[in-house]
Amino acid sequence: MPDLPEYLHGYGPVRRRDPGGSTSPRGSRALSGKLLPSLDAAISACELKDGATVSFHHHLRNGDGVLNLVMEALARRGLKNLHVAATSIFPVHAPLVEHVRNGTVGRISAAFIAGPVGEAVSRGVLADPVVLRTHGGRARALDCGELALDAAFVAAPAADECGNISGRAGRAVCGTLGYPLCDVEVARHVVAVTDSLAPFPVAQIDIPQGKVDHVVKVESIGDPAGIASGTTRPAEDPPSLAIGERAAAVIAASGLLVDGFSFQTGAGGISLVTAAGVGREMAARGVTGSFCSGGITGFHVNMLRDGLFRALMDVQCFDLEAVRSYQTDPRHQSMSAATYAGPHIGGAVVDRVDAVVLGACEVDLGFNVNVTTKAGGIVIGGSGGHADTAAGARLTLVTTRLTAAGYPKIVESVGTLTTPGDTVDVVVTDGGIAVNPLRVELAERLRSASLPVLSIEALAAKAAAASSRAAPPRAVGRVVAVSEYRDGTVTDVVREMDREPR
Amino acid sequence: MPDLPEYLHGYGPVRRRDPGGSTSPRGSRALSGKLLPSLDAAISACELKDGATVSFHHHLRNGDGVLNLVMEALARRGLKNLHVAATSIFPVHAPLVEHVRNGTVGRISAAFIAGPVGEAVSRGVLADPVVLRTHGGRARALDCGELALDAAFVAAPAADECGNISGRAGRAVCGTLGYPLCDVEVARHVVAVTDSLAPFPVAQIDIPQGKVDHVVKVESIGDPAGIASGTTRPAEDPPSLAIGERAAAVIAASGLLVDGFSFQTGAGGISLVTAAGVGREMAARGVTGSFCSGGITGFHVNMLRDGLFRALMDVQCFDLEAVRSYQTDPRHQSMSAATYAGPHIGGAVVDRVDAVVLGACEVDLGFNVNVTTKAGGIVIGGSGGHADTAAGARLTLVTTRLTAAGYPKIVESVGTLTTPGDTVDVVVTDGGIAVNPLRVELAERLRSASLPVLSIEALAAKAAAASSRAAPPRAVGRVVAVSEYRDGTVTDVVREMDREPR
Repeated sequence: MPDLPEYLHGYGPVRRRDPGGSTSPRGSRALSGKLLPSLDAAISACELKDGATVSFHHHLRNGDGVLNLVMEALARRGLKNLHVAATSIFPVHAPLVEHVRNGTVGRISAAFIAGPVGEAVSRGVLADPVVLRTHGGRARALDCGELALDAAFVAAPAADECGNISGRAGRAVCGTLGYPLCDVEVARHVVAVTDSLAPFPVAQIDIPQGKVDHVVKVESIGDPAGIASGTTRPAEDPPSLAIGERAAAVIAASGLLVDGFSFQTGAGGISLVTAAGVGREMAARGVTGSFCSGGITGFHVNMLRDGLFRALMDVQCFDLEAVRSYQTDPRHQSMSAATYAGPHIGGAVVDRVDAVVLGACEVDLGFNVNVTTKAGGIVIGGSGGHADTAAGARLTLVTTRLTAAGYPKIVESVGTLTTPGDTVDVVVTDGGIAVNPLRVELAERLRSASLPVLSIEALAAKAAAASSRAAPPRAVGRVVAVSEYRDGTVTDVVREMDREPR
Repeated sequence: MPDLPEYLHGYGPVRRRDPGGSTSPRGSRALSGKLLPSLDAAISACELKDGATVSFHHHLRNGDGVLNLVMEALARRGLKNLHVAATSIFPVHAPLVEHVRNGTVGRISAAFIAGPVGEAVSRGVLADPVVLRTHGGRARALDCGELALDAAFVAAPAADECGNISGRAGRAVCGTLGYPLCDVEVARHVVAVTDSLAPFPVAQIDIPQGKVDHVVKVESIGDPAGIASGTTRPAEDPPSLAIGERAAAVIAASGLLVDGFSFQTGAGGISLVTAAGVGREMAARGVTGSFCSGGITGFHVNMLRDGLFRALMDVQCFDLEAVRSYQTDPRHQSMSAATYAGPHIGGAVVDRVDAVVLGACEVDLGFNVNVTTKAGGIVIGGSGGHADTAAGARLTLVTTRLTAAGYPKIVESVGTLTTPGDTVDVVVTDGGIAVNPLRVELAERLRSASLPVLSIEALAAKAAAASSRAAPPRAVGRVVAVSEYRDGTVTDVVREMDREPR
């Protein structure tokens, strides 16, 4: 071995290499040691203690099996007071309620909560308030250390034993993995949970091995049929068709529908009617858009294939057509939740969107939108990307029917303020269109296009007239959930309902 | 606005959203503000001070224009004592010598230094020793905070104004961006320097916008013809052909050439002869390999297309055929330097390689390899991935001619110890093959295959006999470079040569 000095000016102490220290035995396969025999083994490796924060993502949507599997394993070990930091919680995650009741889970945070967990939260099952963040706000909270993860459990459609994860291979393909992309950057431990262990290297890596600590094979990560959630067909009922067509007409008249136009819609039926109308108008005008973003459906894929857009920026595939497109078309690109909607990265994709079409449970006279609670106050959602895209887009359209289940949807004051009215430009209903008074020029354009522009007060009056019951008053119990804006400030709180089920 | 409590038990202080605080003016395009008019503006935005560390990558190899452009701009501003933390330095970076002489640059670190900078370093141009790391060691030093970057300047073949970077589009396409992928994770500021500003979103994003702070358009990021460096043809001279064929025969006889075989070669002429021989043997045996890794050439692409391998794991494209393949074939995957070779991520790709074929300036009786200095001690390289792959692979072959320029290449003791002998299994020369005494079973296999196995001492004797001059003694001046092993320990130092040019 060469003669080495012990210290070098401008370098520091010289540590001589120890031949036995860092080399694998020659000729033996250097095992990564990441592949563990069970979830239990992975939980041990993560060294989780009472009060730990465990994260999950919702790319398998209502087909997800991983959150339940992991929580069951954590409960069996007797861990208590855990914080479940999910991206979204669906009806399939109903067993979480029991984990709360028996003390395994003490805190929940998410961007969206639907189903039995939302109902239980509203009825006060948790002592501490649930934190509802936006998708971009959650990414910010992760990156800024506000939301620290002890372990991220990644439902991995396919993985190899070195920890490379693909959303584009395996039994339950889900496409892009935009949400866990943020979790794996910061979690103390990352566990890939897969039912399709592939030979190294797995095809089409979405999360590289360097971000993953442990790999576990389970029998099933969930039901692939649950991914699509049956939401990706345009609406066919006359009121929804009318709303969708009107929203398309608003975009057509807005002045934004020119070359380079960028667009986001959800996967709901009205949104897809709007998308179809916008697409027809683009084709008629010979306009080529730049990109569609957000959650992507086969509908968006067709717009790409038809040459209406140059690219798709996809944080989550909403159906298998989108998954197939992401597998095969390089114009269909993945983005992380931070890139999609983060308010902290110096400009997210939502900040580049020209027009976004959003839904609503309720809209009020201040154009504030509630997508968090249904009439009466039960948690049935949360912002997801709603408040993020509303803030980013040049034109934010909120589409809604005037009434639902007999309740008015245009109200004096929303039951829960999810998305602030100053970020909403137009409300499109089956009873007419209201333009935010901040957007004088836009109102002019819509009137010039002979669109039925009314005041929001007029829409509220129409909604009241068409309703069979009044919007119930806000609950007055203790706070059970906090609705955080994307920057970590608070837009509203949700209060405890009557504990008796109706 | 809703009535909000000021403090919530289990949540903390409630900060009410300020409508004016975090929303862009409605109807205006939210500008990302990342696109700056000049390198000078970007340098200002990075708030660089004397002594700052600035990083560069070498995907444009000897065609790179960005390091010189940036250093010129930094010199014009009068900054002093900067630390240039490059991945590799090539002859094209000769102007760096003047920046050292006039005090702009006070420190250099890199994984590889060739050309005038290496010569100047060896002659003592810098007061502080250069730190030569392996590719994996540099990734480790970045991730562990040992190498802190004030600004990373990313030569971006294409970028959009939001900071998305693609190596697969633009005037000077280079393919994968495995090296800067590590820098952008940790640098305090990241600057994308591009000559091809694309509409948002740039196609085939390799580095997403969330990792990039500033974007600058320059006239040229370099000469695309410099990328290939003319190294991607198999050797044709008889001694090199003989060595390459022998190396292939060693692999064929090693017992590793079975289904799932994984393989790495450099882009040198001998390596490609070996690859061709291995490919023929795989085809003859009907063996399907798993992956080729490292720097990828058209030669590897052909092996993929021929079905000899399932995947390519590519840290850097060595020629335009590789770039085209990465643009179009999803089996051709990118990996970061950390994923490729990091000793700190719980198993890197190098740890999965069955056989790697490496070159050498010198090999000694302890199987130690020098790829750092040429005979006499001038720095002409450094480990790059040499020591990483040698440590990781199950079978490490070092191929070399017995002599070069009249000097013996199998010597008693290497001029600089880059890659430790305990990680080298076989030395293949035009004078025969030597097997590391640690590998008794391998030597048996090679003898059974009638391969010319000699002792390393016998090869050294042959080399001495074929030489016209003796290996010069080590320089005895002060230390001008430290050769770090992948774990941050030191394998050797390089000492100052006579300051007079020969």
